[in-house]
Amino acid sequence: MTDITALSINTIRTLAADVVRKANSGHPGAPMGCAPMAQVLFSKFITGNPSNPYWINRDRFILSNGHACVLQYIMLHLAGYDVTMDDLKQTPGHPEAHLTPGIEVTTGPLGQGFANSVGSAISGEHLAALFNKPGFDLFNNHTYVITGDGCLQEGVASEAASLAGHLQLGNLIVLYDDNHISIDGDTELSFTEDVLKRFEAYGWHTQEITDGDHDLNGITAAVENAKKVTDKPSIIKIRTTIGIGSKNQGTEKVHGSPLSAEDIANIKTKFGFDSDKHFYIPDEVREYWRSFGERGQKAENDWNNLLNSYKDKYPEEAADLIRRLSNKLPNNWAAALPRYTPSDPAVATRKLSETVLNKIADIVPELIGGSADLTGSNLTRWKTAVDFQHPSTNIGNYKGKYIRYGVREHAMAAVMNGIAAYGGLIPFGGTFLNFITYAWGAVRLSALTGFRVLYIMTHDSIGLGEDGPTHQPIETLAALRALPNILVLRPADGNETSGAYLAALNNHHRPSVLALTRQNLPQLHNSSVEKTLQGGYVLEEVDNADITLVGTGSEVSIAVDAAKLLKSEGIKPRVVSMPSFELFGEQSVEYRSSVFPDGIPVVSVEAMSTYGWDTYSHAHVGMRTFGTSGPYKEVYKKYGFTPENVAAKARETIAFYKGKSVPSVIFRP
Amino acid sequence: MTDITALSINTIRTLAADVVRKANSGHPGAPMGCAPMAQVLFSKFITGNPSNPYWINRDRFILSNGHACVLQYIMLHLAGYDVTMDDLKQTPGHPEAHLTPGIEVTTGPLGQGFANSVGSAISGEHLAALFNKPGFDLFNNHTYVITGDGCLQEGVASEAASLAGHLQLGNLIVLYDDNHISIDGDTELSFTEDVLKRFEAYGWHTQEITDGDHDLNGITAAVENAKKVTDKPSIIKIRTTIGIGSKNQGTEKVHGSPLSAEDIANIKTKFGFDSDKHFYIPDEVREYWRSFGERGQKAENDWNNLLNSYKDKYPEEAADLIRRLSNKLPNNWAAALPRYTPSDPAVATRKLSETVLNKIADIVPELIGGSADLTGSNLTRWKTAVDFQHPSTNIGNYKGKYIRYGVREHAMAAVMNGIAAYGGLIPFGGTFLNFITYAWGAVRLSALTGFRVLYIMTHDSIGLGEDGPTHQPIETLAALRALPNILVLRPADGNETSGAYLAALNNHHRPSVLALTRQNLPQLHNSSVEKTLQGGYVLEEVDNADITLVGTGSEVSIAVDAAKLLKSEGIKPRVVSMPSFELFGEQSVEYRSSVFPDGIPVVSVEAMSTYGWDTYSHAHVGMRTFGTSGPYKEVYKKYGFTPENVAAKARETIAFYKGKSVPSVIFRP
Repeated sequence: MTDITALSINTIRTLAADVVRKANSGHPGAPMGCAPMAQVLFSKFITGNPSNPYWINRDRFILSNGHACVLQYIMLHLAGYDVTMDDLKQTPGHPEAHLTPGIEVTTGPLGQGFANSVGSAISGEHLAALFNKPGFDLFNNHTYVITGDGCLQEGVASEAASLAGHLQLGNLIVLYDDNHISIDGDTELSFTEDVLKRFEAYGWHTQEITDGDHDLNGITAAVENAKKVTDKPSIIKIRTTIGIGSKNQGTEKVHGSPLSAEDIANIKTKFGFDSDKHFYIPDEVREYWRSFGERGQKAENDWNNLLNSYKDKYPEEAADLIRRLSNKLPNNWAAALPRYTPSDPAVATRKLSETVLNKIADIVPELIGGSADLTGSNLTRWKTAVDFQHPSTNIGNYKGKYIRYGVREHAMAAVMNGIAAYGGLIPFGGTFLNFITYAWGAVRLSALTGFRVLYIMTHDSIGLGEDGPTHQPIETLAALRALPNILVLRPADGNETSGAYLAALNNHHRPSVLALTRQNLPQLHNSSVEKTLQGGYVLEEVDNADITLVGTGSEVSIAVDAAKLLKSEGIKPRVVSMPSFELFGEQSVEYRSSVFPDGIPVVSVEAMSTYGWDTYSHAHVGMRTFGTSGPYKEVYKKYGFTPENVAAKARETIAFYKGKSVPSVIFRP
Repeated sequence: MTDITALSINTIRTLAADVVRKANSGHPGAPMGCAPMAQVLFSKFITGNPSNPYWINRDRFILSNGHACVLQYIMLHLAGYDVTMDDLKQTPGHPEAHLTPGIEVTTGPLGQGFANSVGSAISGEHLAALFNKPGFDLFNNHTYVITGDGCLQEGVASEAASLAGHLQLGNLIVLYDDNHISIDGDTELSFTEDVLKRFEAYGWHTQEITDGDHDLNGITAAVENAKKVTDKPSIIKIRTTIGIGSKNQGTEKVHGSPLSAEDIANIKTKFGFDSDKHFYIPDEVREYWRSFGERGQKAENDWNNLLNSYKDKYPEEAADLIRRLSNKLPNNWAAALPRYTPSDPAVATRKLSETVLNKIADIVPELIGGSADLTGSNLTRWKTAVDFQHPSTNIGNYKGKYIRYGVREHAMAAVMNGIAAYGGLIPFGGTFLNFITYAWGAVRLSALTGFRVLYIMTHDSIGLGEDGPTHQPIETLAALRALPNILVLRPADGNETSGAYLAALNNHHRPSVLALTRQNLPQLHNSSVEKTLQGGYVLEEVDNADITLVGTGSEVSIAVDAAKLLKSEGIKPRVVSMPSFELFGEQSVEYRSSVFPDGIPVVSVEAMSTYGWDTYSHAHVGMRTFGTSGPYKEVYKKYGFTPENVAAKARETIAFYKGKSVPSVIFRP
């Protein structure tokens, strides 16, 4: 270890102790223990341009043990990213990609960063396969990860690791901070497996460094080795001392709380620093790190020159790439979305979704996705699709865009976040709607970070029938609607399915969930691709209406049929289709009150928990229990999802409000 | 293979094909392929009493690949459980423990059954350590599992497998149906890891059977070996042919759809059956299986005799065991719940929960639980707790009741389901409220199956402060409230925390989620242990009220302070505490309308998504975005959770309804 290297590492350590204490939160131990590996990665391996953190061929660095947040913010500060010393003093609890350029993904919920890195590596391999040409290595970056014990205990990381091994992602290099400590204490309490053996079983290349506190040459050599292994992801287990320097080093006491002022002072003295100086960065350390930015700027300049030559030689590919990097969709892509009339046959919305994918997959080439082993059910595969697989398997290649996620819903969602973070691609993934909750940890981060990820969720209600209550979502739409910054779209027919894709793709900083039926649905009168974007709209209007019936997805046609029954009795019903609460909530109050005019009671029908529907309806036909196993029509009848029952609820509601004032669902305090 | 064994296996296979076709759902392939291993398990190893499916020392059988449901129902039918041929013809899509005695756990969502089995095995080891005495092996049963590829790809199973290996659960024996086929096709598409090597890394004993279609002796010997390994869980990889006998055997075509009538006829012919006979069970097969029930009845009789002798020798232990098995809590246990007065100091509800655990852990000895590596944060460990660990570790023993779940939230919840299913124990587990969604797949099954599981979820809002938005729940309570058959309890102080435990323990067939604060809360005037059981109640009443303020948990005291501000201005506020929507919803309409009287507008305050609050309040102080990282008081202020802002919202609401009729929140169509 050279003097400057040691000085830099100790600067990181003392700075980490100071920052955590100042913020009165965060975890000092891991940043101090991981300082040597971070030093090696940022000084020798990671190429990035602090002046342009989004340069597409940068190496990605992901801190999966996000509670070591301060380490990442310190490295960004030292490397010259736009993280000032004042920012550093207010380092958040966990890295926040949506707020700080240079942070690739928001981490903290354990295992997520690790799984994101698999998406990042997939993107790198795919874009390299697609755009690289002889002499034009436009994509040759690596994804580097630091992870702790906690992440490796999480199921989402296990799923992602198995997938990464299967896909032979050679551009993925994980440094495992093996500090033997978790919050409860020594890992002997709960985590005694042989981690490297497990990763070997997944098909990873594994290495071990026994003295990660001091053996920088060893870490360097291991990362160099890992880079040479191009057909396997790599994990390097690095034994470190958590909170090194502290009087409590190597124990859980340094894990989750700030160190005492006295302890910090002693650490500084031990490392040869002035114990009275806080947030101190020696000038020579500042000077030393200047080279990071210079190296990165040069790399980007060289890359831009390469791209310029590429433009001449491969104008078509270059145009595609440049368009993607500008985050613009192809012109007129939406013209490819199919449109329907009521005379078109009844079709399940999952099938209509498949039609959309077939129409747009080649027009919007950045779409990349698959299913968690439910391809034939989710109908996520388009006709020209090729599997994303390592070429040696002969069942696909890295140019392929159909990802076989396996039965790994949580990893699928986290991998999609990693793909979205990488840039140049739009990920989608399918499973049954009920199993989006298996993936919730990652879905939540799609929303929090604002990633354009498409969740294609089929079998979206008790209407899936025979699979029974274990597979029938009840609470799922309420959970999604309560989650900020995510679009939930439940289209009622073909036009609304096209509208749902239009909304999903045009929302660049918001994930979307498409809730799609297993069962066939008729093409509705007055349904509309464009009106879908308003979230809710009038399908059937009538003067002096007695009642408004509102439905979503498969229940809209039931509402339409209920309206027919009511009309035959001289009752005047309106019908509203409401594919998206979120989009509707964003409309003007004038528009919303035209959809739900004051004075007219509203009955909702949705084969889902009624929880939350009091916002828009006075009475509900919905679910208050789990579902049941049986043919879909019987199940629907059992729970009252029939025109007859909806009509009965409408009559009851009209009677209830006779002579009473009807509460407005739009005008509220 | 003897003739009768072969006949029995082929009976299972043809019956599976018939049943799946009749129900027009389900999966014929796996039941047909798994018939030999099921034959071995049920004829040679599993002891159970069809006349008393809940006999506590039965062997447990869990079908983790729940889509092979028909296999389990057929085995129960053959073995003499109360599954008639008519029941069989209506086999549900997945095993439903809440409907069919003999089914131990509801499976189908992949990985759950596998993880449940770890809970089952923990229970077996714990109760054996607790109650067995020399000559009295009251608990010596095994937990047998059949699992497929899908389960082993799921993160929840990986987490559980790592935990089971750590805990050295020798009574757990898993048969892995390695049929190389998932829904998408050959497992080469996505699942190419070395499964046995992975399990070795977890510390499991592993074996392999290469011809699982025919090598019954091999399977038998392997299970016998596994039983001999008492300090490791065992997995036996058994290569089978999915849908064996079908023209499409060994392919994904036999996975998820009924076989054609023609194919079934050919299978029957191939297996020497009459192709015209449906649901056919040869008499000799019926006769053969009679011994299962006889063997089980004898085993239970012997066990009852053993228990009778045990009663004489160990009366105290016997009384405890018999009480547990009768599913009764100890007399007067609730008298131990602490009660508070307003002069008691302000304390965080997580800390109050710790106090409750300390008071009741020894009085209610069937409580067994821990935390997903957040012990010091969740405060789930009581003073006399001993770790549940393998005795060889010297850090605990199998009598211990504190489970170190590791950073494995999903497995923790699924393991708790397995413990609840076993009987004689009440499981609880802790993590941050936000991470209950990591465990949702299992939480949902707690609710669906009706298991008394206690989720002790701390850091229950943006009030956790510095950890930031990745850890701050927003959508979580809405999701839980929308889930059927689960109690959500968010106590406001000490009395309500005691009330929450009272409700949770007294709900024998419903899981509970306790949402507890990180921050301190004052002891409220008029709060009550008993009123907590009504879900919502009036804390402060006033004649001719202008407004009702309703809060939950940490926001109740803010509502109380807001009421003081309003009173100082001459406004008359009522205050309602609402710890549980579910319990409140179960009260009489008279009671509910006394809590929310007509004509008085309601303002709610809860540091959580406002989604769903339109049911009980006209205006809300709540969250509509993600939170932020910072000190709790600053974060609360930023989002309006202050007495001043609640008072302002109250004034606004009163003004809004001035001269207008106020919609009733109780009387609805």
